[in-house]
Amino acid sequence: MPILKMSRVKQAIKKMKVKNELTRQILGEILGTFVLLLFGCAAAAQVKTSRETKGIFLSVNMAFSVGVMSAMYLCMGVSGAHLNPAVSLSFCMLGELAWIKLLPYTLAQILGAYLAAGLVYLIYHDAIMEFSGGVLTVLGPNETASIFATYPSDMVSMQTSFLDQVVGTAMLMLCILPLNDQRNAPAPKGLLPPVVATVVLGISVSMSANCGAAINPARDLGPRLFTLTAGWGTEVFTCYDYFFWIPLVAPMVGGVIGSIIYLVFIQWHLPEPEDDSEELNDETKAMEHNDKKDELYYKMSAL
Amino acid sequence: MPILKMSRVKQAIKKMKVKNELTRQILGEILGTFVLLLFGCAAAAQVKTSRETKGIFLSVNMAFSVGVMSAMYLCMGVSGAHLNPAVSLSFCMLGELAWIKLLPYTLAQILGAYLAAGLVYLIYHDAIMEFSGGVLTVLGPNETASIFATYPSDMVSMQTSFLDQVVGTAMLMLCILPLNDQRNAPAPKGLLPPVVATVVLGISVSMSANCGAAINPARDLGPRLFTLTAGWGTEVFTCYDYFFWIPLVAPMVGGVIGSIIYLVFIQWHLPEPEDDSEELNDETKAMEHNDKKDELYYKMSAL
Amino acid sequence: MPILKMSRVKQAIKKMKVKNELTRQILGEILGTFVLLLFGCAAAAQVKTSRETKGIFLSVNMAFSVGVMSAMYLCMGVSGAHLNPAVSLSFCMLGELAWIKLLPYTLAQILGAYLAAGLVYLIYHDAIMEFSGGVLTVLGPNETASIFATYPSDMVSMQTSFLDQVVGTAMLMLCILPLNDQRNAPAPKGLLPPVVATVVLGISVSMSANCGAAINPARDLGPRLFTLTAGWGTEVFTCYDYFFWIPLVAPMVGGVIGSIIYLVFIQWHLPEPEDDSEELNDETKAMEHNDKKDELYYKMSAL
Amino acid sequence: MPILKMSRVKQAIKKMKVKNELTRQILGEILGTFVLLLFGCAAAAQVKTSRETKGIFLSVNMAFSVGVMSAMYLCMGVSGAHLNPAVSLSFCMLGELAWIKLLPYTLAQILGAYLAAGLVYLIYHDAIMEFSGGVLTVLGPNETASIFATYPSDMVSMQTSFLDQVVGTAMLMLCILPLNDQRNAPAPKGLLPPVVATVVLGISVSMSANCGAAINPARDLGPRLFTLTAGWGTEVFTCYDYFFWIPLVAPMVGGVIGSIIYLVFIQWHLPEPEDDSEELNDETKAMEHNDKKDELYYKMSAL
Repeated sequence: MPILKMSRVKQAIKKMKVKNELTRQILGEILGTFVLLLFGCAAAAQVKTSRETKGIFLSVNMAFSVGVMSAMYLCMGVSGAHLNPAVSLSFCMLGELAWIKLLPYTLAQILGAYLAAGLVYLIYHDAIMEFSGGVLTVLGPNETASIFATYPSDMVSMQTSFLDQVVGTAMLMLCILPLNDQRNAPAPKGLLPPVVATVVLGISVSMSANCGAAINPARDLGPRLFTLTAGWGTEVFTCYDYFFWIPLVAPMVGGVIGSIIYLVFIQWHLPEPEDDSEELNDETKAMEHNDKKDELYYKMSAL
Repeated sequence: MPILKMSRVKQAIKKMKVKNELTRQILGEILGTFVLLLFGCAAAAQVKTSRETKGIFLSVNMAFSVGVMSAMYLCMGVSGAHLNPAVSLSFCMLGELAWIKLLPYTLAQILGAYLAAGLVYLIYHDAIMEFSGGVLTVLGPNETASIFATYPSDMVSMQTSFLDQVVGTAMLMLCILPLNDQRNAPAPKGLLPPVVATVVLGISVSMSANCGAAINPARDLGPRLFTLTAGWGTEVFTCYDYFFWIPLVAPMVGGVIGSIIYLVFIQWHLPEPEDDSEELNDETKAMEHNDKKDELYYKMSAL
Repeated sequence: MPILKMSRVKQAIKKMKVKNELTRQILGEILGTFVLLLFGCAAAAQVKTSRETKGIFLSVNMAFSVGVMSAMYLCMGVSGAHLNPAVSLSFCMLGELAWIKLLPYTLAQILGAYLAAGLVYLIYHDAIMEFSGGVLTVLGPNETASIFATYPSDMVSMQTSFLDQVVGTAMLMLCILPLNDQRNAPAPKGLLPPVVATVVLGISVSMSANCGAAINPARDLGPRLFTLTAGWGTEVFTCYDYFFWIPLVAPMVGGVIGSIIYLVFIQWHLPEPEDDSEELNDETKAMEHNDKKDELYYKMSAL
Repeated sequence: MPILKMSRVKQAIKKMKVKNELTRQILGEILGTFVLLLFGCAAAAQVKTSRETKGIFLSVNMAFSVGVMSAMYLCMGVSGAHLNPAVSLSFCMLGELAWIKLLPYTLAQILGAYLAAGLVYLIYHDAIMEFSGGVLTVLGPNETASIFATYPSDMVSMQTSFLDQVVGTAMLMLCILPLNDQRNAPAPKGLLPPVVATVVLGISVSMSANCGAAINPARDLGPRLFTLTAGWGTEVFTCYDYFFWIPLVAPMVGGVIGSIIYLVFIQWHLPEPEDDSEELNDETKAMEHNDKKDELYYKMSAL
């Protein structure tokens, strides 16, 4: 009987199955970015509202890193686990994502980040209220807006912030592109998520002092939109001289620059595989099997 | 002669061998949960009784994470290393554990956690006595009950605590189910324990401010029962308005919700393996060998 | 010409090659334990003499963990990387190390630890002199003996210390034995060192408050002997009511207990491999190649 | 049409492709060392200029570690990812790098480090100016030179500093040489970068108190030259009694010593592979494929 039931369930599931690839990918990106931000913003809330008694700055860096790892395992097989419009844009440029998909991917990522910010707010509602005295502000010692979106340090100029975000995102692309480049020295396929997560940890501990290391327009805009709608007011966009556009634009520029640096300084000069037909060694064969996931990267390495 | 002796030992062992699978699994879960809690509660004792001079909040998070890793390597081949009734319940729902085994698994996990709490109390008896001035209390600056079970922060409401535990456990299931889903982008089989441990670390650093991130009824009830019997009194159950039921019920709800989210938003839409007979690539073959361990997960991915 | 030179060098090396297996193993254990202690004690010196400005308690835990990993990669192929008389004793009991080798292994480990303590003293001589005001003491706020050997906290009784070391070392053996047990869920062979290192990190963050988590007689006696000879005086042995014997005896007891627990509660009940001849799957074949290293573990899993 | 465009792009790329191997390798070392230093120095800037509110000493250690990992994945397939003249010198001595390439490698590494220091200065310009009050100094509480190059602690003598750097770099070589030695117990090829990074983390947390754990002449000289040119003045070379030469010379000595210790105490005594022709097991075959990268290490293990 359980077998019978199971086969009925299977039938039902088959009908519900999303046949359209893009829809599947959008679902994947929404859920992946949701997981990434839930870990990250919840840790920021924990550290801030506990006044560093239940975690330190490093904990938040680690939470974003674990978030990247978890989100990648969750949706890498579905959508490639970009989780970041800057990554999607870079992959479009590299021929690994159809340009037509850039906007849907981006919107999905922003939506996932928005939803995660909302859930973090629900979980930490009591703590945020107690910490802030019930007044949701963007500035001052009891501000809580920085739990969600990124804001610059006081002394940082606009140009420095922009450069900071360009460099951070360029480092991201420069460091993750080799990880799956079969002609270089790639990481094991099943361990890409923790290695990418470690790169993100590195960026967080080294390039977050100026303006919070968004390096991801969706990670920043989604939660910022949430704070706008949840009571922090328009100041989340107007403060620091309309800072908000920097984590939107600079990462897109930085991602592309980082990708180009990798292509120009490293990948173009890697020795070509001697013979494409013979190149089908065991690893390649294994890869053919789940080529859906691999084709993105394959194109790049064939460039 | 050592060979002779060895064969006699072998004979003796064969007789003692537990033939009943469920008994084996119960032994595995007891010992696994024992290891998990020994690491975790001992670290909590170390940090609290040393007044953070021998570790920080992050150390405790790390200890629970290492505990998960160690416990998983210890009993994954025996019982699947659930270590958590919420995980067992989710796996029952997913068809990976017989419903009849849910109660024995749960009781084994609670027993393992109880025993670990007892041993931690023995090891840290002197330190606890010095820290608490010899008075075992649940509240106040010298409370020591939170070394063992979880208690909420002062400002957190019942609803928030419940939601917090639901979300934490949902994240756990949502993030570990893809790790062994062969149709998604799974982690290497031999490295599941550290990857799951990293997910638990992420939850600990981001969702433990409200009520201690039990996300596991056994992890909470076992040590709480121990403190009841060891001198902390009934207050461990009555305090914070009978908070104790939340880490019992909410994780069960959360685990199921997280599993359903993974099924509905990701797994159902993953492309089916083209042909089951041809799908037997090298990795699958290797898996067949130790199919005892794999069948649980296999069922899930076949769902 | 370089080829010519190379072949001459090869000749010379062949002559110098240590043919005796035990000598090789002793060299391996000396160097391995040296590396373990150099990392660990140097970190203790760094954190103490910098008064926690250049590291925290957690850094020392991490350094011992990295030391275990590095030492294991260094000598696992030579001596099995026991690095600890308690591990060697357990492996003798498990039939994985000849009893005749227990003493040489132990002495080699103590020697390696002694030498490392000496080098740490040289490197941190200036810092130790400044920190201690030039007076090398075992007690008081400016004591520096705890950089090298372990000492108990003030409030801890003898019995608690003993139990603490028994439990810590039992956890060590209980958690590392499954890692290479092919019938359980083993870690990848090439990643045993970092996984074992993580277990040691877990023990360090959770069971070092009472008496410093030696869990290794050589790790403790070697540096203690060094401090005796280097100016700290006989107090390193007499202080805390002759505490020094506890990290010598208790880990030996604990290691054996932990091993027995694994055998009795887990390993004896694991399903036997169906057929030994057919069991020679790819992984096994690969292992045959370097069977020198594997035979130790193999015996255990065959028990 | 995109295919058409792609093939044109391919043509253009082929023309730009650097045919000369050394040029490729130099590009790789420049970029790799650049990435290493960008992570490391940026973290130092973040922690210092935020007065430890956005990171702790451990964060800087971790950033250098992530930098090593990322840099190795980036250029291991191109140049072997030495990233350090001391490593290059050791590999020359081991016959793994042509002596003629030592100088170009070294200059490339220094250039990469110089460029990274420059970019870190740009990113953290505002923060450095605020922290230092606009005065770029090498000494005193508001000094900022130590963000870039290493400087000794006050109480450390010249001899101790020298020994410290010798030991640190010797540990580096002693711990990374076994990782790729197929006759020992090597780490998985695709995971060499994180394992090496962990070794570097260990050295950073245990041997950086005296003089900052440069263990790498390029890591130190590049940024020191940058600070000379950027306004810190000649004091960066003259201070602490011309300390600057120590991180240049001592690591070269230490690297060679560490390599020799590994050869003499471990590698020479490892059992020889029984038969070289039969030794071509699966792993070796896979290695043949990308033998460009492996030949360096192969030579060593054949020594």
